[in-house]
Amino acid sequence: MQPNPDRSSPEVDEPQPDERWRIRRTWDDLDRLGETESVFALSNGWLGWRGTLDEGDPVDMPGSYLNGLHECRELTYPEDGYAFPQLSDTVISAPNATLVRLWVGDEPLDLRTGTVVAHEQVLDLRAGVIERRTEWISPAGDGVRVRSTRLVSLRRRRVGAVDWTVEPLDGPVDVRICADLLANERVPDRGDDPRAASLIQDPLAAELHRVDGADALLVHRTERSGQRVAVAVAHRTAVPEHITTGVDATPDRIRLTLIGSLRPGERAQLTKFAAYEWAPVADSSVEELAGQVTVEADAARAAGFAGLLAEHRAALASAWRAADVVLDGDEELQLAIRFAMFHLIQAGRTDGDRAIAAKGLTGNGYDGHVLWDTEGYVLPVLTYIAPDVARSALRWRHAHLPQAFDRAAELRLTGATFPWRTISGRECSGYWPAGTAGLHVNADIADAVLRYVAATGDEDLLTGPGLELLVATARLWHGFGHFTDDGSFHIVGVTGPDEYSALVDDNLFTNLMARRNLRGAADAVERHPEAAGRLDVDPTEVAGWRAAAEAMTVPYDPKRAVHQQAAGFTDRPEWNFGDTGDDDYPLLLHFPYLELYRHQVVKQADLVLAMLRCPGEFTAEEKAANFAYYEARTVRDSSLSAAPQGVLAAELGHLDLAYDLFAESVLQDLKDLGDKTGDGLHLASLGGAWLALVQGFGGLRDDRELLSFDPRLPDRIDRLAFSLIWHGHRLHVTLTADEARYELPDAEGDAAIELWHHGERLRVTAGQSTTRPMPPLPDLGPEPPSPPGRRPARR
Amino acid sequence: MQPNPDRSSPEVDEPQPDERWRIRRTWDDLDRLGETESVFALSNGWLGWRGTLDEGDPVDMPGSYLNGLHECRELTYPEDGYAFPQLSDTVISAPNATLVRLWVGDEPLDLRTGTVVAHEQVLDLRAGVIERRTEWISPAGDGVRVRSTRLVSLRRRRVGAVDWTVEPLDGPVDVRICADLLANERVPDRGDDPRAASLIQDPLAAELHRVDGADALLVHRTERSGQRVAVAVAHRTAVPEHITTGVDATPDRIRLTLIGSLRPGERAQLTKFAAYEWAPVADSSVEELAGQVTVEADAARAAGFAGLLAEHRAALASAWRAADVVLDGDEELQLAIRFAMFHLIQAGRTDGDRAIAAKGLTGNGYDGHVLWDTEGYVLPVLTYIAPDVARSALRWRHAHLPQAFDRAAELRLTGATFPWRTISGRECSGYWPAGTAGLHVNADIADAVLRYVAATGDEDLLTGPGLELLVATARLWHGFGHFTDDGSFHIVGVTGPDEYSALVDDNLFTNLMARRNLRGAADAVERHPEAAGRLDVDPTEVAGWRAAAEAMTVPYDPKRAVHQQAAGFTDRPEWNFGDTGDDDYPLLLHFPYLELYRHQVVKQADLVLAMLRCPGEFTAEEKAANFAYYEARTVRDSSLSAAPQGVLAAELGHLDLAYDLFAESVLQDLKDLGDKTGDGLHLASLGGAWLALVQGFGGLRDDRELLSFDPRLPDRIDRLAFSLIWHGHRLHVTLTADEARYELPDAEGDAAIELWHHGERLRVTAGQSTTRPMPPLPDLGPEPPSPPGRRPARR
Repeated sequence: MQPNPDRSSPEVDEPQPDERWRIRRTWDDLDRLGETESVFALSNGWLGWRGTLDEGDPVDMPGSYLNGLHECRELTYPEDGYAFPQLSDTVISAPNATLVRLWVGDEPLDLRTGTVVAHEQVLDLRAGVIERRTEWISPAGDGVRVRSTRLVSLRRRRVGAVDWTVEPLDGPVDVRICADLLANERVPDRGDDPRAASLIQDPLAAELHRVDGADALLVHRTERSGQRVAVAVAHRTAVPEHITTGVDATPDRIRLTLIGSLRPGERAQLTKFAAYEWAPVADSSVEELAGQVTVEADAARAAGFAGLLAEHRAALASAWRAADVVLDGDEELQLAIRFAMFHLIQAGRTDGDRAIAAKGLTGNGYDGHVLWDTEGYVLPVLTYIAPDVARSALRWRHAHLPQAFDRAAELRLTGATFPWRTISGRECSGYWPAGTAGLHVNADIADAVLRYVAATGDEDLLTGPGLELLVATARLWHGFGHFTDDGSFHIVGVTGPDEYSALVDDNLFTNLMARRNLRGAADAVERHPEAAGRLDVDPTEVAGWRAAAEAMTVPYDPKRAVHQQAAGFTDRPEWNFGDTGDDDYPLLLHFPYLELYRHQVVKQADLVLAMLRCPGEFTAEEKAANFAYYEARTVRDSSLSAAPQGVLAAELGHLDLAYDLFAESVLQDLKDLGDKTGDGLHLASLGGAWLALVQGFGGLRDDRELLSFDPRLPDRIDRLAFSLIWHGHRLHVTLTADEARYELPDAEGDAAIELWHHGERLRVTAGQSTTRPMPPLPDLGPEPPSPPGRRPARR
Repeated sequence: MQPNPDRSSPEVDEPQPDERWRIRRTWDDLDRLGETESVFALSNGWLGWRGTLDEGDPVDMPGSYLNGLHECRELTYPEDGYAFPQLSDTVISAPNATLVRLWVGDEPLDLRTGTVVAHEQVLDLRAGVIERRTEWISPAGDGVRVRSTRLVSLRRRRVGAVDWTVEPLDGPVDVRICADLLANERVPDRGDDPRAASLIQDPLAAELHRVDGADALLVHRTERSGQRVAVAVAHRTAVPEHITTGVDATPDRIRLTLIGSLRPGERAQLTKFAAYEWAPVADSSVEELAGQVTVEADAARAAGFAGLLAEHRAALASAWRAADVVLDGDEELQLAIRFAMFHLIQAGRTDGDRAIAAKGLTGNGYDGHVLWDTEGYVLPVLTYIAPDVARSALRWRHAHLPQAFDRAAELRLTGATFPWRTISGRECSGYWPAGTAGLHVNADIADAVLRYVAATGDEDLLTGPGLELLVATARLWHGFGHFTDDGSFHIVGVTGPDEYSALVDDNLFTNLMARRNLRGAADAVERHPEAAGRLDVDPTEVAGWRAAAEAMTVPYDPKRAVHQQAAGFTDRPEWNFGDTGDDDYPLLLHFPYLELYRHQVVKQADLVLAMLRCPGEFTAEEKAANFAYYEARTVRDSSLSAAPQGVLAAELGHLDLAYDLFAESVLQDLKDLGDKTGDGLHLASLGGAWLALVQGFGGLRDDRELLSFDPRLPDRIDRLAFSLIWHGHRLHVTLTADEARYELPDAEGDAAIELWHHGERLRVTAGQSTTRPMPPLPDLGPEPPSPPGRRPARR
């Protein structure tokens, strides 16, 4: 959509609040509506509303998501195969309670018509709301000002609310206001792009629609996934007396209508308090679920919008204490990293065991599936800024362990095999070489357990779900791998993180992560023999794990003096970058897998990610050589890539490159660098942005018993400050060009955290800050080249 | 279907013709109707009729195929990818002209009802007809004898005919005889088995139906493939005067009906002369095509059934001169090898350039696709028994070279890339790791060209289509492979013949066949520089081909002293045969590719096939070691496997094993060993049976300038005799325990063939036979074990 060209850009002149916390979109941005809807998505990890306009049109993709609510669809294959998934989960929308449609005279409010005097939507990252303000003159010449504030409560998981007001601009106007609760909203078809959602139209079958005064209720169920969803909306209105109210209800829509005239100085205010819940049909009744949401909506109305907002803001402020990152020196990226942290705060919940999907609850991309993005890129952040949320996500994996056991049995493997992509826990990957064969997801889950336990000391989780996850995944690796005659242990025929390779032998990332998994499980078993006994683990089995871990193959090419991403990788033919044009990216849309798989071309950090996750497995020299080798062959066709590359670039002292990679990661969605933000945000990229800062410039490594920092700042950053929660204490780290400061701002008494700073062991205690100088950077020579045309944009 | 249990097996007592040429099925075989329909399929390489009953019911799968007639269907992928085929070809049935339905009184003739006094169908391999005889008493007690003879003319490509008679058994009977020409016959759905056809119901849209006296005509077209098909039937009846005739026509069915009574001694005879043709809609008109088939049908009627049969039988007798194989000592296998040769004779044509599909025109399995089975298993036979047919099949490949160039460009490869499976020439493989990645099909085509040219001296083909095929495929290999620093040439990321491996590096079969392809192309270019110049081949390019061929990697495991099926194969984990039950076969239906691909388990001969195709690349010791190693790991889940294994077993002196492997290959369809014969015959297995005899016990090798024979007979064979056409002369070889006899029975004058017999160069001349003693067999120790439970059945 193009803005109407015969009209100058409208302007808004009001006092501006702190813009370092506000993302603003105006009428000029209407041509990137889908992107805005994702960027402005509000969520509490349970309920998610895309940032659509109140009036519902224009819209790119509506979305009201409830974590776990999905439908199933059949997968069909041109050539079917054993254990190919026959059903896939796909996220669907719950009824949309955000809608407030307005007619002014006979004209519906639609920013594509009439005259837009002013329009802006603001995502306030500190308040956790979308503020919307529009001044619009209808084609018939009637002017109105519309304002709204929307929130999804971080305090009440089922609740979202919209506070909406209209007033005349000049003269009197006739208005008709329709507050809709709408099920089965039409979702646009996105065509063939495999990364977009497989859309199911009209997924909800009506079970109940009820109106009680100003309260609306819809209950629906899905056909195949066996889920029931209920939404109640309690309304509150503040309108002049001469406005009349009516209600119109159908199975898929309940509409509260206000009709009348507004004189200058009058306004009509409508507040919608919505409550959502779903439950398995087998475990719920219509009335039971209806009752829950009705009570919740009534309670929210009783609290009032201001009350909801206050408690929501307080919860958000609490989350920001650990999550905020201060980045002085680059205002755009300061705002961008806060945007990233805001969505990470929104992604998960501490109450209830819920998944964190690759796109959170911001869009239907990837069918709403959970991928390894969560354990690989999101939990490494949440473990330090919201450990309870990380715990909840790990418990969600654990809750689906029975399905992982079943899948392993179906695949005739030992232990457990977690799905490559799923909502319900079933494997939903329809192209197994880049899905089910990505067995590393199992080691990624184990890695997330080990990190969480190390950072929190949560032995409850370790002896319960944690141990079960570690043992089940260790058993997978031990059974899947094999010893060869020379005594070495191999894992063959799998796919690592890089999706431009598949079915390789001894993928270095997989092998090192499996080693960590095996050792971590062995350590945990030995620390908790009683719990391990309940899982029938005996010392012989543990000895087998340790033997496999010790003998794990780490492919290395002595001639080129670099590690191999997988056995034989460096012997593969080189990609012909000379004949690859700018239009040929992303390569997967222009070259067959047949070509991609056999060449030395890397979609995304794989060996580089291994150097980040398992830093102790490499010498500094090896890291430098490996980084240079793989940087030249990594095209970053995946949003998962920039961040780990940035971390390693920072570690190796290539700080400008690191900064540019960080910028790419943190701007992935704000600038829609992959042209896919409209389908939802890339949580892994947003998590990666934090990793690029904290692991990159902060130099955080967490593979040893204590946290370790090797900070080094690029010129562009004057000050970098962030927090980490470690065993219940918030460690605050402030870095400047001259010094690193470590503090425990919230701690009292003899609380202390020991850590490493550039190889020196420090003890940080409550009540005082510990500072150390930043060491000079060694001269590491020129920046390793990226593939032609593929270096990240210079800032 | 089960035979009616309350009725004893009917018997037929007539004088028996030579049973060594007749396949017989009776009422007892009604429960294997689909298998019988395939085994009894008649074809001339252009038109194919499955061996269904005249009355159309019961039926397993009707089928009236015209070579090339197909429809397109969309392929959909759960996760689409670049260059994944979006359309697939699938064979469809032309209208069925074989049907003659009979009502006796009110009862339709149906072998599942009434009393079957006698019933048999006989496939007469020497006459090339199906003879059917049934004596049946209707549920109402009326007895009839029905006889029919069916042929598909080897002399007239468009023509098939049915001669059908009914007469009363005892008393008078009222009969109604309906001779149908029926389009869009219902085809049963076979469910999810990926090896069965993807059926399209009602594929034909009516364009014309016309009745002219006793002549019927239907013209239809397909919707998506743009083909038009016309069928005309000319009828001839010989009936008592009181029989009345009527015709009833609808767009999809024309029915000639004869109604009346037959007294004892009277009979009603109906002969149907059918003519079929298809053409692209763009290149034909309805009337033009209608005219062609009408003229053909009329001409057939004018020739009369006896005339058609005589000329057909003469053509078949001519084909048998080179095709017959005498195998004294095992009557079942004597008949079976004749059955195999009959279907090989039926598979192709010399006039017009037509494909030979994997199932010929005998069923809709594999969607009617052409696979590498043709070049790999069928043309190595046809080249020697019907070289003109081999030529025609190679010209068919050449006719689709433009599509192979386009596909290579789409895949961003050099040269040409032939489809893994196709009818129209487009790639139809929906699972690329076991399809498009099987690039060896290109070398198989080149190999077939080289063999054909060597066997015939056909320089016309070589300088034209042959050279284009050789050059285009050589260019593929040269561009696809790469040199590594050590100067060796590699082909990586491809799939060899064994479908329990995929995307491997340096598959030995592929590499050796590519070497043969490169060298063969280089030789041909140097022999025909002018023709090569038209293809822009210059000496530098040829030098590149030779350099790649010389440097081709041949993976070898020095520790185990065996070649590797692909790089690293022998380092893969062993398959756990101990935990694999008899019910776990075929493994592909019980284990995921994830497991199959990474283990040392072989579906089908791969390295063993390489030893057959490229025998000069291996020493005798290497062959013995390789054979033993791979025999122990080859489960023969493919019908392509037994024959090449048998050839190598014979070469190595394991003659009992070789004989049992030959038996498995030749009985694949007659005994329905794979439970898939109902979908159509496995031409590759039938071709393989000849190879197992001629290359196995005859010891034929054809990789050198002259044919070479190292014959050795198993105890079970008293005499083995076969023919080969070599440069226009038929070489007849007769082997007994004591001697090998070489003759040119048809030659005159100074015609001669030079050949090798156990290392001795012989010159076989016209008019006299050359005999040599059979050398004693060396003692080669015990038979190499097959996987547990997977040795072929002992005879």
